[in-house]
Amino acid sequence: MTSRPDEMNGAESVVRSLHAEGVDVCFANPGTSEMQFVDALDRTKLMRCVLGLFEGVVTAAADGYARMAGKPAVTLLHLAPGFANAAANLHNARKARVPMLNLVGDHALRHQKYDAPLSADVEGACRPFSDWVRSGRDAASFAADAMEGLAVAKGKPGRIATLIAPADIGWDAGAKVAKPVTPSAAAPLDENTLSDAVAALESGDRTVIIAGLSVLEDTVALARLQGIAEKTGADLLAPVSNRRMERGHGRVAMKKIPYPINDALETLAPYARAILVETQPPVAFFAYPGKPSLLLPETCRTTVLADVDGDGPAAIAALADRVGARAVTPRDNAPPPVPQAGKLTAEVIGAVLSNTLPEGAIVIDEAVSSSGIIFPSGDSAAPNSWLALTGGSIGIGIPLSAGAAIACPDRPVIALQADGSAMYTLQGLWTQAREGANVTTVILANRAYDILKGELHNVGAQPGPDALSMLNLDRPDLDFVALAKGMGVPARRVEDAQDFMRTLKQAMSEPGPFLIEAMI
Amino acid sequence: MTSRPDEMNGAESVVRSLHAEGVDVCFANPGTSEMQFVDALDRTKLMRCVLGLFEGVVTAAADGYARMAGKPAVTLLHLAPGFANAAANLHNARKARVPMLNLVGDHALRHQKYDAPLSADVEGACRPFSDWVRSGRDAASFAADAMEGLAVAKGKPGRIATLIAPADIGWDAGAKVAKPVTPSAAAPLDENTLSDAVAALESGDRTVIIAGLSVLEDTVALARLQGIAEKTGADLLAPVSNRRMERGHGRVAMKKIPYPINDALETLAPYARAILVETQPPVAFFAYPGKPSLLLPETCRTTVLADVDGDGPAAIAALADRVGARAVTPRDNAPPPVPQAGKLTAEVIGAVLSNTLPEGAIVIDEAVSSSGIIFPSGDSAAPNSWLALTGGSIGIGIPLSAGAAIACPDRPVIALQADGSAMYTLQGLWTQAREGANVTTVILANRAYDILKGELHNVGAQPGPDALSMLNLDRPDLDFVALAKGMGVPARRVEDAQDFMRTLKQAMSEPGPFLIEAMI
Repeated sequence: MTSRPDEMNGAESVVRSLHAEGVDVCFANPGTSEMQFVDALDRTKLMRCVLGLFEGVVTAAADGYARMAGKPAVTLLHLAPGFANAAANLHNARKARVPMLNLVGDHALRHQKYDAPLSADVEGACRPFSDWVRSGRDAASFAADAMEGLAVAKGKPGRIATLIAPADIGWDAGAKVAKPVTPSAAAPLDENTLSDAVAALESGDRTVIIAGLSVLEDTVALARLQGIAEKTGADLLAPVSNRRMERGHGRVAMKKIPYPINDALETLAPYARAILVETQPPVAFFAYPGKPSLLLPETCRTTVLADVDGDGPAAIAALADRVGARAVTPRDNAPPPVPQAGKLTAEVIGAVLSNTLPEGAIVIDEAVSSSGIIFPSGDSAAPNSWLALTGGSIGIGIPLSAGAAIACPDRPVIALQADGSAMYTLQGLWTQAREGANVTTVILANRAYDILKGELHNVGAQPGPDALSMLNLDRPDLDFVALAKGMGVPARRVEDAQDFMRTLKQAMSEPGPFLIEAMI
Repeated sequence: MTSRPDEMNGAESVVRSLHAEGVDVCFANPGTSEMQFVDALDRTKLMRCVLGLFEGVVTAAADGYARMAGKPAVTLLHLAPGFANAAANLHNARKARVPMLNLVGDHALRHQKYDAPLSADVEGACRPFSDWVRSGRDAASFAADAMEGLAVAKGKPGRIATLIAPADIGWDAGAKVAKPVTPSAAAPLDENTLSDAVAALESGDRTVIIAGLSVLEDTVALARLQGIAEKTGADLLAPVSNRRMERGHGRVAMKKIPYPINDALETLAPYARAILVETQPPVAFFAYPGKPSLLLPETCRTTVLADVDGDGPAAIAALADRVGARAVTPRDNAPPPVPQAGKLTAEVIGAVLSNTLPEGAIVIDEAVSSSGIIFPSGDSAAPNSWLALTGGSIGIGIPLSAGAAIACPDRPVIALQADGSAMYTLQGLWTQAREGANVTTVILANRAYDILKGELHNVGAQPGPDALSMLNLDRPDLDFVALAKGMGVPARRVEDAQDFMRTLKQAMSEPGPFLIEAMI
């Protein structure tokens, strides 16, 4: 580049500064305005560079990586349209409170005043999908900006930080490695709130503890929560979709608030008191005519023991201490039997998972309309990590799997993937193949946006043929075996229970990706 | 729904009002918050509903439709993430000045204050990619908002209007069909500017007329432009990428400003005067170290005869009149010969197109690194319409083709599609199949983001293995024949010139979509 040997350009200063703070994976779909980063990554060899063929693949893979690695990756995106392509899965990552740092290339500062073909309001595009946005100003301060962004990303509970990188700031010389910035710590536990939670548990009122985020990732916190429940009679619930749940034998089986509005209202109706730990008051996914938005009864008194930026496990330890509860490890549930023959269904897939998930498996749950049926299987299986679609924006599972596999190369990843949602970021299969990711993708092929048929009913409509044509994915049928083959992923279609179990076992035991088109 | 028989809900009032103004195609990927529109479209049967399996397919198809139909379609998108998925191709449509009206579902007004999983700043997400954004306020005023948006979209030169539709406004009753709003007319021709343009042409200075947008769609305006050029010695140029160019035998062969920065500067270096008609001063796609952003020489005097919102054909008619030029139809160029044997190259593809394009063919040009080589073929072919990627955001060609085919079911569509770009919105093949669109997609398979290799060089870098791994699409090779099959589109891989010509001819002569993986 244009730098003298004794100085570096802006792009290199950012790469070196991030690497010094532990960022060693870059998920990218670069364009012209990011070429100086591509060059810096190439010259420094400090990061593993993972290419996605679409930006939604890039951010979902970075999300899956961060959920399993417990630290952020950096992404490399191309101007406002590239960021927009990435945004839906940033939305999901943001709702999951996943730490991520995005570098979004922009035109050189002097070029920004012209209406070039790719010109658009980059900062405006980034803001709705980021917790922090900054535009780099010059090469000298560029790495310090990146360090600030990284600290925002890593602060409790995990945030999306986006640094806009004008091309000339990347290629200008005079930059240097910047010092790290300390991320914000968890919000402290409030003694009055703790006493309020204790009072709720000792009140005799029907009480629910709803726990999310890091509580669900911490088997000790979960065991303490179970102890509190057994001691006080409180019920335990998790939010409808979660960043990561540590599940399976030896872990507490956390029930979730159901997705369907009527089921959710019914589940929460009995409670007079609610204690929230690293989660917000549960709210309906959507509003429906004649139904409330908030899911807890209006009469329910709610105590926020730890907000999303608090330290849930510490709060639970304190609460257990106050009510005199010990950590309790529940008895393991026996897995349900797998039918010896018969058609494949979501229930059968759940039974097979219970019986076959290897210890340490990572399950990616974008099963959508089948999710509620398959979910319980994770509790009666070997210990596993269960990652869900968190922000409701479909199209995360395939690339999320790739990122999780990159973070944990020794653990098999099983993606439960609705067919309609799979089509959003199908390109992630190619990244799985390129990276040799040990992912078995199970396409739940019901050939419809099935969940929307229920939703159409919920707003009071009776679907006619034109409505159904917008919700059905037939005409033509998708052939996921061919689609996988086209991206270098071996695949097989299965239609019955035993064939599915055999195929899944074999796929999980072999390295590299495999896809099973499960006809349900 | 909740309406009495004598009144309609908000969604139905919008559908009926838009249809009364000629909007009869809806490209959609709906979700829960749009179910009342799905229901209204189903009950009224007023619009053809076209489903895309990803929102970038939806907006690119609406773009292709509008470019050929000359009127906007309406799109149906789902909240902020759905809009974001649609945004890259809205960016392209916006840069092409294509009229489009987006309906973006949002949470019901009462639900918006909660942090539901899909909650985000919808208006903020829409603004960077729209010329006009409004949020619906109530059912009674909803159709009037849609009419205002439609008028914005249809006004000169064509705009992106986005109406945010909270779910309850769609399902609430008490709405009615709204009156149409008159779109803005073209800006009038300024007599002083006209005189200035005449003076430029008569000055003896080396002069270029750069004409875009509706001029390139108007064979009479082009013939007059040719007359002016022959009469005055001025040169003619078109912008690097254009909404639609009417080309081929009997039409004026317009050269384009080249994409590569050095070629563009060299092309424009000779000119002392420039006359712009429905285009802005040419600007480099990107800034590069040591190169200017504006492509015309600093010393060049520029006259904007008609801005992008002006009436270019009328301005050209007036100019021809003032300089005493007549419409001139140039002699047809003979198509170049197709080699009898040998490897397929971009040059060969161009020669085949010249010889085989049927009259009335619609060519979609997302050939990217091969575009400059293939482009001239459109001039020596039968009359055709040539549609390009306009905003630089790759991933438009496959769905743009589907939309163009829906607008013009009797004209064959040929999509020249770079492989890397194809992967962005590959799902559009399924929409082609479902709609029986007569599209032949030619994948230009060079297995790389080839154009970026040049760009890496342009910023002064020498690509090493890590850089190349982010620009090459091998490991694994994509198999487009399998990918097409997976979406119901028959396909064939070809490697030599004669096989390509045979396959292309057959594909164009048969109804429905076909894909040719052209190994170049």
